[in-house]
Amino acid sequence: MQTFQDLLLQFETFFNRHQFPSQPQNLYEPCSYLLKLGGKRVRPVACLMTHELFAPLNNDVWNLATAIELFHNFTLMHDDIMDQAPLRRGFTTVHEKWDLPTAILSGDVMNIFAYVHLNKINTQYIHDVITLFNQTAIEICEGQQLDMDFEKREFVKIDEYLQMITLKTSVLLAASMKFGAMLGGATDGCSGLLYDLGKSMGIAFQLKDDYLDAYGDANKTGKQLGGDILANKKTFLLAKAAELANEDQLQNLKELCNRNDKNKVIDTLAFFESLQLKSLIQDEINTYTKQAYAYLEKVPVMEKHKVHLHALLDMLLKREN
Amino acid sequence: MQTFQDLLLQFETFFNRHQFPSQPQNLYEPCSYLLKLGGKRVRPVACLMTHELFAPLNNDVWNLATAIELFHNFTLMHDDIMDQAPLRRGFTTVHEKWDLPTAILSGDVMNIFAYVHLNKINTQYIHDVITLFNQTAIEICEGQQLDMDFEKREFVKIDEYLQMITLKTSVLLAASMKFGAMLGGATDGCSGLLYDLGKSMGIAFQLKDDYLDAYGDANKTGKQLGGDILANKKTFLLAKAAELANEDQLQNLKELCNRNDKNKVIDTLAFFESLQLKSLIQDEINTYTKQAYAYLEKVPVMEKHKVHLHALLDMLLKREN
Repeated sequence: MQTFQDLLLQFETFFNRHQFPSQPQNLYEPCSYLLKLGGKRVRPVACLMTHELFAPLNNDVWNLATAIELFHNFTLMHDDIMDQAPLRRGFTTVHEKWDLPTAILSGDVMNIFAYVHLNKINTQYIHDVITLFNQTAIEICEGQQLDMDFEKREFVKIDEYLQMITLKTSVLLAASMKFGAMLGGATDGCSGLLYDLGKSMGIAFQLKDDYLDAYGDANKTGKQLGGDILANKKTFLLAKAAELANEDQLQNLKELCNRNDKNKVIDTLAFFESLQLKSLIQDEINTYTKQAYAYLEKVPVMEKHKVHLHALLDMLLKREN
Repeated sequence: MQTFQDLLLQFETFFNRHQFPSQPQNLYEPCSYLLKLGGKRVRPVACLMTHELFAPLNNDVWNLATAIELFHNFTLMHDDIMDQAPLRRGFTTVHEKWDLPTAILSGDVMNIFAYVHLNKINTQYIHDVITLFNQTAIEICEGQQLDMDFEKREFVKIDEYLQMITLKTSVLLAASMKFGAMLGGATDGCSGLLYDLGKSMGIAFQLKDDYLDAYGDANKTGKQLGGDILANKKTFLLAKAAELANEDQLQNLKELCNRNDKNKVIDTLAFFESLQLKSLIQDEINTYTKQAYAYLEKVPVMEKHKVHLHALLDMLLKREN
């Protein structure tokens, strides 16, 4: 049983061994560039951690963790185009540094390389692994589509919002945790618990993102407070506000969304407070957090083996940035 | 043993059974739209034909043929963005009919659905099939990158051009023909012959495209004669012209490329004739065509079983459109 940090260091070593071919340079250089920007590597390391609950790490799980991280970076490269994002992890995005065709094609080939690593897994597991991988990949595309669809709407319902973040964000963490258990030889019931754990954790993580945008400490998050509010982003807070507002309040909310002045954030936060949204989103985060801990509780391995997964949950859910 | 036409009809029936989910509509409608524009289905049907040389058609090969056609259409959707193409098979391209993010994301999900079908194949074959599929997919991305790199250059060498069309066009036909043999239980040597056959056939096919652009009958091709010349596209003819030209002729060729007047095509064709390029490209097509027939000759099955593959080669290589 190793800590997140221990496994992170080992993962980076294994992951960096994966080198793209050198030619054509214009295809592969953008892939290496994006990977070198780093990242928290939460998904692949979570996969390694759940594997260690059941079996010692082996080549299969290292390759699977690599596939997960390559796939994740492929989606980032394409999402950045779709979102017209200028920066990723503080550096110029691929489509800005190179161009649009490059970011499309380099993303495509990175996705294929994810499948190259999946295909290195022992034949015994390969069908089930690829089944879950494909299902998850499809759900992530669906989540990104819903996110884009939501941009064109004035408000979305809470259920729709939760469905979108589940697909876009949490199923990959869920699948990563299930993959580790599957390759470790866990029963279906047991690996299913780890899927549910990852899913709850992913939702709580995304809700915390929404919380920190409105109520975080800009010195700690490194982001402008109220960035989502300024962009009228469809967050849990906006969805909940629209759900709870009476007719007059809804009119107020619409007017707030249409404003672009310097007091938009402070006035919107005051409006959210009139509906007690800070406490409501905290409750929601707590609900999913408790779910996550409850699933971990049920995993039938010795409590002392769960200590590092507990620490990971704590790290992700109690974060202030 | 069935003809191309027989198998095409059956393939269409099987392929149309593949339905994308209905929601999110903005993700899947563009996928269905592109598939409904049709296409020659040469690759999946070639896969079925080589399979029939060795074994009766089964679910594995139908799923593999479906995966090939889904993958091919995914590359078309993304290539059309990169090439800024307004039309595909005479209809508006996806990025024009919807928008850029839609064409990226719908392409991405179509690629994943190709792997969904691959993953339905019997466990016995799945590793080898996915290995060749991934290798081919990577080569196709590399070929597209070379094609884009070439656009920025004045001239390319013949070897570079042949490498590009091999990767971009012919390896998918090669792999399709090998896949059919693999799943039919052919030996490695035998399925290798079908790979080489498909590769030679694919190169001859692309060279014929170059030939028809310059020397075809516009009434039959349905395309403007000299379209490639007008766009300074890096074709076999342009590469060969640059290779054979002496210093003065190279200067002439550069001037021709810089022209945009109405006589550009006719003057370039006259220049090509001064280097006897029409006969040289015919020779090159013949060389690859003969290679393809020679590989077919070597395939160790009864001659009478090869008759429909012969007809396919004839159809593709002697075409006038």
